[in-house]
Amino acid sequence: MSFDWPVRVYYEDTDAGGIVYYANYLRFLERARTEWLRSLGFEQEILRQQGILFVVREVSLKYKSSARLDDELSVSVTLEKMGKASFQLSQKVYRGGAGSAVELVSAFVTIACIDDQSKPRSIPAEIVAALQADDDH
Amino acid sequence: MSFDWPVRVYYEDTDAGGIVYYANYLRFLERARTEWLRSLGFEQEILRQQGILFVVREVSLKYKSSARLDDELSVSVTLEKMGKASFQLSQKVYRGGAGSAVELVSAFVTIACIDDQSKPRSIPAEIVAALQADDDH
Amino acid sequence: MSFDWPVRVYYEDTDAGGIVYYANYLRFLERARTEWLRSLGFEQEILRQQGILFVVREVSLKYKSSARLDDELSVSVTLEKMGKASFQLSQKVYRGGAGSAVELVSAFVTIACIDDQSKPRSIPAEIVAALQADDDH
Amino acid sequence: MSFDWPVRVYYEDTDAGGIVYYANYLRFLERARTEWLRSLGFEQEILRQQGILFVVREVSLKYKSSARLDDELSVSVTLEKMGKASFQLSQKVYRGGAGSAVELVSAFVTIACIDDQSKPRSIPAEIVAALQADDDH
Repeated sequence: MSFDWPVRVYYEDTDAGGIVYYANYLRFLERARTEWLRSLGFEQEILRQQGILFVVREVSLKYKSSARLDDELSVSVTLEKMGKASFQLSQKVYRGGAGSAVELVSAFVTIACIDDQSKPRSIPAEIVAALQADDDH
Repeated sequence: MSFDWPVRVYYEDTDAGGIVYYANYLRFLERARTEWLRSLGFEQEILRQQGILFVVREVSLKYKSSARLDDELSVSVTLEKMGKASFQLSQKVYRGGAGSAVELVSAFVTIACIDDQSKPRSIPAEIVAALQADDDH
Repeated sequence: MSFDWPVRVYYEDTDAGGIVYYANYLRFLERARTEWLRSLGFEQEILRQQGILFVVREVSLKYKSSARLDDELSVSVTLEKMGKASFQLSQKVYRGGAGSAVELVSAFVTIACIDDQSKPRSIPAEIVAALQADDDH
Repeated sequence: MSFDWPVRVYYEDTDAGGIVYYANYLRFLERARTEWLRSLGFEQEILRQQGILFVVREVSLKYKSSARLDDELSVSVTLEKMGKASFQLSQKVYRGGAGSAVELVSAFVTIACIDDQSKPRSIPAEIVAALQADDDH
């Protein structure tokens, strides 16, 4: 019922504290969301050419533990609530595999659908259907 | 009663949507926090050598409007709550000057104080005093 | 005869080696180029709306010494050669002020002028004149 | 005789010009170098704990064509010259698969080996042997 995407930590992701810089988890979260949409058949660049853009309206992050250089992380995406023109996701960043995974960051993200004039628009029915079908699995 | 720090938007900050990439506001917020501490006499690198580190534990962001290339932004820092080992800030990102400023992003940030073993520690009294004195202005 | 732009090093710029991440000097170099153009009266966003874009075609970097958290750097821009559709700059990143400056990075950058179809185009005469006049000072 | 590493382009990598920001290719190049070393049995974090660090001393980049959002890229690593305390690599960024690949960026990178005091040191014999054996394949 949730999608997972692997992320490896490189020097580019870390800071002088020796850990992943706090803003970079937002990059990891977006990679996972993009791959989740792609796994359901939706490429953001193609959607954009059709005037369908997804933008982050709100995000809340809790930093529980730190990722370090060379860590193999996993980023999850779970649909929490589907609206007409927006939806809400919970996302988590883990280190380690099933059974021994440590949760490093948890996030709650609200995504809105806008058109190429940046006006709110309803999410196309086929996308709503695909996201909800994924959630029912 | 709040500190403001100017930020100019460069190509590095933007994405293919033509606007500032959502993670990069966290970079802007941290620049303002760092300069706020510096303005009160505290350099993070020197604090770090003394085993005093400030880390973000939680952050909530609302994205209200978008910044674009060449925009001149202003990032505010306001102390909301002072604890023994942590404190809370509200931060806002504006475009435009006093009187005509548009609020683009609002954030609520919880900062914890840790030692060089990543253990929670109390915030040194002189720092508490300086932050609260700043807040009373 | 050269333009200088100050850059402060924040956590976002550093990596787990405790120093500025090697790619981030390219961000610093571009900030200085953008501010150099701006100081001569040219805003890149306005140029872009006129179908005038400047893109980097080649860059060579030598890393001589490392910048660290909280460092105050200075980034220079010097016009080396002006062509019809491109120009070459030397840029340096220093730490410390006049008299005691340490050179950290030196770069040689080739910039081409393109139109909104990404085709090479000649640099507008007023820009050529302004860059060369700046160089003659 | 050369190592290849896949890189997907996300929003984080692009800029307002709609293409990958020029500094971000250095991030892609480093990911490929790190994975090349890892494929030969060397983890940089473990090497670092042994006082063996690899740092970039020089890099030259030619930008030939642009990568865009959602592009699937490939980054190559080829050993060009092995020295006692440094080595030189050529690296290329491609889009598209074998037979139809378009070269976007070519780079030439000089890497030096330093100790934990940032002093040049000779590259351990087992690393020299592994890199050269890889090159002979």
